[in-house]
Amino acid sequence: VIIIKANNLSIFIEFHAIIEFVTTLSHLSHILQQDCQLVSTRPVLIGVSGGPDSLCLLDIMWRLGYPLLVAHLNHGLRDEADKDAMAVRGVAHARGLPFILEQADIAAYARGHAFSIEEAARMVRYQFLFEQARQHQAQAVAVAHTADDQVETILMHLLRGTGISGLKGMSYRMHPTPWSHEIALVRPLLGIFRDEVLSYCNEQNLHPVFDRSNLDTTFYRNRIRGELIPTLEKYNSGIKSNMLRMAQTLASDDHVLEVLTNEVWQDCCLEHVATGVALTINILSAQPLGIQRRLVRRAISILRPGLRDIDFSAVERTLLFLKEPTRSEQLDLTNGLRLLREGEKLWIASWEGDLPTGAWPQIDHTPHQLTIPGCIDLHGKWHLRATYVEDIQKAIAQAADNADPFQAWIDIRNPLPSLLIRPPIPGDRFQPLGMNGHRVKLSDFFVNIKMPRRVRKNWPLVCLGNDIVWIPGYRISHLHRLTVSSTQAMFLQLFKD
Amino acid sequence: VIIIKANNLSIFIEFHAIIEFVTTLSHLSHILQQDCQLVSTRPVLIGVSGGPDSLCLLDIMWRLGYPLLVAHLNHGLRDEADKDAMAVRGVAHARGLPFILEQADIAAYARGHAFSIEEAARMVRYQFLFEQARQHQAQAVAVAHTADDQVETILMHLLRGTGISGLKGMSYRMHPTPWSHEIALVRPLLGIFRDEVLSYCNEQNLHPVFDRSNLDTTFYRNRIRGELIPTLEKYNSGIKSNMLRMAQTLASDDHVLEVLTNEVWQDCCLEHVATGVALTINILSAQPLGIQRRLVRRAISILRPGLRDIDFSAVERTLLFLKEPTRSEQLDLTNGLRLLREGEKLWIASWEGDLPTGAWPQIDHTPHQLTIPGCIDLHGKWHLRATYVEDIQKAIAQAADNADPFQAWIDIRNPLPSLLIRPPIPGDRFQPLGMNGHRVKLSDFFVNIKMPRRVRKNWPLVCLGNDIVWIPGYRISHLHRLTVSSTQAMFLQLFKD
Repeated sequence: VIIIKANNLSIFIEFHAIIEFVTTLSHLSHILQQDCQLVSTRPVLIGVSGGPDSLCLLDIMWRLGYPLLVAHLNHGLRDEADKDAMAVRGVAHARGLPFILEQADIAAYARGHAFSIEEAARMVRYQFLFEQARQHQAQAVAVAHTADDQVETILMHLLRGTGISGLKGMSYRMHPTPWSHEIALVRPLLGIFRDEVLSYCNEQNLHPVFDRSNLDTTFYRNRIRGELIPTLEKYNSGIKSNMLRMAQTLASDDHVLEVLTNEVWQDCCLEHVATGVALTINILSAQPLGIQRRLVRRAISILRPGLRDIDFSAVERTLLFLKEPTRSEQLDLTNGLRLLREGEKLWIASWEGDLPTGAWPQIDHTPHQLTIPGCIDLHGKWHLRATYVEDIQKAIAQAADNADPFQAWIDIRNPLPSLLIRPPIPGDRFQPLGMNGHRVKLSDFFVNIKMPRRVRKNWPLVCLGNDIVWIPGYRISHLHRLTVSSTQAMFLQLFKD
Repeated sequence: VIIIKANNLSIFIEFHAIIEFVTTLSHLSHILQQDCQLVSTRPVLIGVSGGPDSLCLLDIMWRLGYPLLVAHLNHGLRDEADKDAMAVRGVAHARGLPFILEQADIAAYARGHAFSIEEAARMVRYQFLFEQARQHQAQAVAVAHTADDQVETILMHLLRGTGISGLKGMSYRMHPTPWSHEIALVRPLLGIFRDEVLSYCNEQNLHPVFDRSNLDTTFYRNRIRGELIPTLEKYNSGIKSNMLRMAQTLASDDHVLEVLTNEVWQDCCLEHVATGVALTINILSAQPLGIQRRLVRRAISILRPGLRDIDFSAVERTLLFLKEPTRSEQLDLTNGLRLLREGEKLWIASWEGDLPTGAWPQIDHTPHQLTIPGCIDLHGKWHLRATYVEDIQKAIAQAADNADPFQAWIDIRNPLPSLLIRPPIPGDRFQPLGMNGHRVKLSDFFVNIKMPRRVRKNWPLVCLGNDIVWIPGYRISHLHRLTVSSTQAMFLQLFKD
């Protein structure tokens, strides 16, 4: 409520304040609609500590007619905590708004999870806010980070080492969030400096219970705020505004690059499982360096979502690994991840856990007997079928022209053999078709044909007695090939449903 | 020359130095080929002050077999300047390299152009280096900026306010440069910190004549180097490396965005003359915000190539101007530039000088008489032709169906009239076809039909006596239209070669 006083000077001052107040409201109204994408018909849950930032946001959104739910987490860390909670309840009730209070033992949570108090407070607070937002079907959780918080965050990223993603700072709207895929996190005050927030509180007679900066910001952040920013302002007094504008420019640049990366990702990502992400090497390599780096970072962040910083050198190592075909097939990457090259696939994968082998035929350690005619089922919907050939002349011709490594014609000298399907065993040797009189170690043959290393151990081999007669997908044995003098043959097929 | 000493410890240290030396050379060899894109078959002109950075670069490039031309500018600013020049000559001659020396009166140049000494030194030095490179047909000018210079430059941009273009810092290769479109500027030491340069000089027995940082860096830069960076290192001791990596990442992001912007620019830029750049509004508006901002910045930097910083708010004002069709047609932008909307065109233009009107028919202040049949020439290859109609019934039908505003059929009541072609005069009124009995002010009509403001003054009007009978490109007069009772008519055409 604004009081126009009789005194001329006082009227002038109050008039100026009214103008500022109306400008702030109209500016925030635009931000809430355009940047935060809020509608005024569905509830918004607002986290209110009782400090100036959250009181200011609460008051503005209430004046602009948003249906608010006021949520306060009692951290129980300070003596005044109960008094603060009651003050926030008073503010909510004075405006006829629902008030949600929760008590948390942050100190216990921090001990239990080996977090710092600040980290624990942040985790518990966001979990509480999103849980309540879900229960009350809110469209979003609103928090009151200001332009000062934004500048401090960007500086912290800059000091720690970052790219656009860190330099652009926080966003007006974040969706999905680490806490919910359905409910957005909005920060309407990101463009408003703390000075303006304090003026607003003062002019609107809001009474902050305490300055939250004392509670939930770290010692490091307080040093940035209290020491580093004032130092930087000695070099350029407009540094805070400059950094805010920089963040806006970089956010729109980042958006363009992310849209572009999304498009390429659709084509480039072949497989994505809990243990790894497979990228198509030739698509990845064809991208400009900036997009290559983003694709690799994305793969890493999918596998390590909690990772705060992705090591620059890990990304560079990945791109080098791609470029140099003479390097080994596998390389340690970062944070328990490895690089693995399989033909046209680059796997970025966890060292722990297996990668999917569903695409390849695999067999467990128990050998399978297969009578002819007959069919057995292997893992991953693969099947092996054996039949007798009826027209031997036709089979000889077909075998000579065969271009499909998943079918084979095998000479039979002793009638009615039984086939053994088994994985490789140490000491296996094999005489590949075309290598007359020369048996090679099976392990060497696997290397030569570039069979992915991790599927070798369980690759199905078709054997007659001790002889490997066919390595499905690759080669038959020279000794069991059809020749013009063959009189009997079987036809083998490995196929997938 | 590396001396292996008898003492064991000493051998170990020297061996370590050899390894480092070889590593540095092989690293730089890669940078020179890949990043600087130099070939070892064509001369490179290297600017050598005699300080550690340029001596180090000179020695490395010489060892790697690049044909060098050593260029030194005697700034004449210090007492030791002549001694320094002789020392650089000694270094060049000891390696059998040509030495180019020039004497400059920087102080006089600075006074004459109202530059600071530092700005003047920079301008004169680069002009000298590129002029010599051109005369000696060098492929590039090489300068010895180090990773420390890079970090300082980025911090200066950051303090001043910047986007990716500033945060990415300097490039290994810049082409074209402000000084030459043909000859590249390369900075091979951008990834090497000054400490490493000093170690190299020490190990290779190079004797820098002075530390150039004392001469050609500004007081502000020295403050960044001596005070700000050490302060930032207290927050994160790896800040310099972090910023260097950030610059690399941002450079590749910027490259992707610039390639994208180039592509859109081809479609979006309609006209580009000395006084202005015209962009197609619907193409510009359809782009994501990041690309819109880049297109506007590009237009501004084309018109104001010397501009160091493009005002963020000027770019935002331009985009707002586009979005709000109710706004005025013209707006002040920044640095003597204005925004001007003309139908589907957005002009970013100088307030001074005229924009091209070649696309529109224009006439000067002298009226032209046109007898029928006849043809007269207007500016910009436009012509107006008048003929008598032979078949009046056909003409009535054609006039009724006419969809081309650059041709018109006019009723003739008095035979053999003479037409007057003239620009508008104050007080002109006009009765547009379809407005029965209603004469409007010509100036209001121009507004209604959205004729570009700047072409109104010289638009050709076809008159009979005091009556405007046709506004070519827009409308004929209601009073002179063909009707079913017309018995004679003329056919008018305004056309361009």
